[in-house]
Amino acid sequence: MEPYGGGGAPPDARLAPRPELKRERVREHLLTVIDARRPGDAIPSERTLCATLGVSRPTLRAAVDELVATGLLVREHGRGMFVAPAKITQELVAEQHPAGAPRGQGGRGTWTSRVLELRTVRAGARIGRKLTLSPAADLVHVTRLRYVDGDPIALEQLHVPADLVPGLTVADMEGGFYAHLRERRGIRTAHAVQSIEPTVLSEEEAALLDVPVLSPALLFDRITSDTGGRPVEYVRSLYRGDRYRIVSRLALRDGAADHPAADAGPAGAWWGTVE
Amino acid sequence: MEPYGGGGAPPDARLAPRPELKRERVREHLLTVIDARRPGDAIPSERTLCATLGVSRPTLRAAVDELVATGLLVREHGRGMFVAPAKITQELVAEQHPAGAPRGQGGRGTWTSRVLELRTVRAGARIGRKLTLSPAADLVHVTRLRYVDGDPIALEQLHVPADLVPGLTVADMEGGFYAHLRERRGIRTAHAVQSIEPTVLSEEEAALLDVPVLSPALLFDRITSDTGGRPVEYVRSLYRGDRYRIVSRLALRDGAADHPAADAGPAGAWWGTVE
Repeated sequence: MEPYGGGGAPPDARLAPRPELKRERVREHLLTVIDARRPGDAIPSERTLCATLGVSRPTLRAAVDELVATGLLVREHGRGMFVAPAKITQELVAEQHPAGAPRGQGGRGTWTSRVLELRTVRAGARIGRKLTLSPAADLVHVTRLRYVDGDPIALEQLHVPADLVPGLTVADMEGGFYAHLRERRGIRTAHAVQSIEPTVLSEEEAALLDVPVLSPALLFDRITSDTGGRPVEYVRSLYRGDRYRIVSRLALRDGAADHPAADAGPAGAWWGTVE
Repeated sequence: MEPYGGGGAPPDARLAPRPELKRERVREHLLTVIDARRPGDAIPSERTLCATLGVSRPTLRAAVDELVATGLLVREHGRGMFVAPAKITQELVAEQHPAGAPRGQGGRGTWTSRVLELRTVRAGARIGRKLTLSPAADLVHVTRLRYVDGDPIALEQLHVPADLVPGLTVADMEGGFYAHLRERRGIRTAHAVQSIEPTVLSEEEAALLDVPVLSPALLFDRITSDTGGRPVEYVRSLYRGDRYRIVSRLALRDGAADHPAADAGPAGAWWGTVE
């Protein structure tokens, strides 16, 4: 996106003159630089970029910081700045569109798990309510790190009603847990309700995920039920924002805007940010 | 969730003894405290909570900070800590399940928009490619703030091919843009591809959204096409993490784990964090 010098659309009378959001132009330039290169390639120095763009060092650094935080650039002390590895891309789709495994470009995208902790706890009021259990019920609480090609990507806290999985072992949780439920316990998962929020990582979480403290992350909160409607797990997961993103492909309903909600509000009747 | 003193599952031999992730217990207690109250209610003081939980002030503060950052608690200087307003909850659903408008609990959940900037720019290489246009093509670039019940919730940057919307005005963009496309331009949107990533807000973005700098946010990146497959907009939006979350309800495919990808990897064949 470049400033337009030509005759284009006339300025709108209601708009006071307002400078473009300052960092937007620098960000666009950096994104173009990144797009033209491959993961691992060096990009020009801060000095060169400042000269090219005619901006101050702090302005440039702020834009670079943002791209480092969101996982597009990597800074290596004394060596310069490089295009980051491509993110693991997970498609978020409904039941009738099974998608492929997440793409972990640049590697084979192999997922593995390591259990940090597995113990029995009492549900307590809050998690008991989520799992429709008594607060005094026993849960197996598992803390698990998930890796892609050996890099830690997600930190999970799972809570499973203990009577569903007597004798559950670390090995069970380091293989596929759903496969374990189905093959060893005769439990078939059928529904999930999941919320997604952005967060930042605490010192402890960041250390486990091998990123700086306060790095952006996606927080998933999920309750999964079996074919009989019985909740079988409550899971809270943190996914590294610099390595993970979600992609959705949606077919928009023709006439969606005839829905009152779509006309009433920008968030639309059926989709987070579509007006 | 409470530590379990009883006989339960035996410790797994492969697990070295490891203390529970330190802040988890404090977080659980705070969440239980929050769950028992309504938005706006006070929670006990830091001193009381430290005494109740037997933890140090820094440990408690770190847990409170996290809940403030993710929008569950509000700290008011000199007054104490309060349960935050409920988040706006947006269901993320596929075409055949039109959902209701996002719930903005505690208010009517009325969305409005304000245009900060509307001008014509050249596409440039990167955005031109996204919209399958020449880098020299003209785009209308709109910066728009979106409000719910008067609070700023999202900051959007829209890019629309200029030849689709000659004479586009601020008023057009402060009403429903999709309705405008359909009713005034004869353009029906049909498909969208959207990515979702976590990020943190820059100083300028945070000021516009009325939150502290580096607050967590969801970054949406979307390309929308019309019924003929022609891209009609490229949108980049930032949604405040303290006020906005996404919820998905998924029917899991029976036998999903027969998919090679589901057995191979925790991320599963069809869903971000389901194994």
